[in-house]
Amino acid sequence: MTEKSSGVVDLLGVLTYAELTGFLRMAQDATLAPTLADCAALSDLAAAEYAHFRLLRDHLSSLGVNPEEAMAPFTEALDAFHAQTAPGDWLEALVKAYVGTGIAGDFYREAASRVDEKVSDLVDEVLADADRSEFVVERVRAAIEADPKIAGRLALWARRLVGEALSQAQQVAAQRESLALLLTSDPDPADIGRMFARLTEGHSKRMASLGLSATA
Amino acid sequence: MTEKSSGVVDLLGVLTYAELTGFLRMAQDATLAPTLADCAALSDLAAAEYAHFRLLRDHLSSLGVNPEEAMAPFTEALDAFHAQTAPGDWLEALVKAYVGTGIAGDFYREAASRVDEKVSDLVDEVLADADRSEFVVERVRAAIEADPKIAGRLALWARRLVGEALSQAQQVAAQRESLALLLTSDPDPADIGRMFARLTEGHSKRMASLGLSATA
Repeated sequence: MTEKSSGVVDLLGVLTYAELTGFLRMAQDATLAPTLADCAALSDLAAAEYAHFRLLRDHLSSLGVNPEEAMAPFTEALDAFHAQTAPGDWLEALVKAYVGTGIAGDFYREAASRVDEKVSDLVDEVLADADRSEFVVERVRAAIEADPKIAGRLALWARRLVGEALSQAQQVAAQRESLALLLTSDPDPADIGRMFARLTEGHSKRMASLGLSATA
Repeated sequence: MTEKSSGVVDLLGVLTYAELTGFLRMAQDATLAPTLADCAALSDLAAAEYAHFRLLRDHLSSLGVNPEEAMAPFTEALDAFHAQTAPGDWLEALVKAYVGTGIAGDFYREAASRVDEKVSDLVDEVLADADRSEFVVERVRAAIEADPKIAGRLALWARRLVGEALSQAQQVAAQRESLALLLTSDPDPADIGRMFARLTEGHSKRMASLGLSATA
C-alpha cells in the first residue's frame, strides 16, 4: 500500500470511528435532556452520526479494507477524548454536540481537498447534514438570556473540549505519519500548526454564534 | 375526542416513546460490545428504532397531536422497565434487544388489526425492519455453543425481561382504559389475558430460536 493510500485509509478510519463513537455518546447525552422534545432533537443528531458511520464503513468495505482494522488505531484517542469530556448537564451536552459536529465538519472540509473524488463525494454527503446542529444555537442562547452567568461556565467548557480535541489530534498525527502527510501539503510541523489554526478559527466563530466568548 | 381516537393516540404515544427510549437504551447497551463490528450491529438496530420513532412522532404531529403530550402518560412505565432491566453484559444486551424488538413487533401486529388504515401502513413500515435483529440469533447461539452453561443464566434473564414487560404493560392497561379497549375486542380482562398469552407464545418461539428454554 502506498503512503497516500494508507493515509486515505487512516483518514477514513478515524472519521468512521469518530462517527460511531459520536453516535453512541450523543445518544447517551440525550438522556440529560430536560424535555422529550429536547431529547428527540439530540437523538436526531445522534442518528445522523450513525448514518455517516454507515456510509464511511461501507466505503471502507468497498475499498477492500476491513472497517474494524481501519478504525482500530484511533479508538484509544477518541475514547480518551470522550472520557475526558463527559457532559455534566444538558447545556454542556448541547455545547459539546455543537462544538464537536462543527470541528468535525471543518476537519472533513480540510480533508476533502486532499483526497480522491470518491472520498470527496462522501464528505459532501456528510456535510450536507451540517445544519442539523443549528437547534443548539437557539437553545444555548435562550439559556444564557435566562441566566447570563452560565455563559462563563459554558465558555470554559467549550475551551476544555477544544483543548482535549487538539491534544488527542496532535498525538494521533504524531503516531500516524501517513495521515499527517495527507492532511498537510508539506510534512512540516508548522503546516500542521496552520491547519489547527484554521480549525480553531472556525471554532471561535461558532462560539460567537452561541453567545460565548472563545478567548476571554 | 372519542374513546376510539383517544385510544389510537394512546397507542401511538406508547409506541413512540417505546421507540425513543429503545433507541437510547440500545445505543447505551452497544457500548458493552466486545468488538467494533458487534457494536456497529447493535448500533444499527438502535438507529432503526430512532427511524421508527421519527415516523411515529411525525404521524402524531400530522394528526394535530402534540407528540410529547401523547408520550407523557407512558414514560414512567417504560423508564421503570428499562431501569429494572439494564443488561449486565453483552449477551444480556443482545437477548434484551432480540426479546424487546420481538415483543414490540408482536404488539404492533396486535395493534395494527384494530386501527385505521393509516396507522396500519405505519405499522407495516416499522415491521419491515423486523429482520434487523436476526444477527442476535447467530451471536447468542455461538456463545452458548462455546460455553453451554450460560444458557441457563440467559434463559432466566429473558424471563425476567418478559416479567417486567408484562408487569408494566398490565399497569398501563389498567390506567389507560381507552388503550385497553382499543387492544381488545371486548373490555373483558380475560380478553386482555388472551392477548398477553399470544404475546407470550411469540416470545417462547423466539427463545427457542436463540437456543434458550422459555419455561424450564
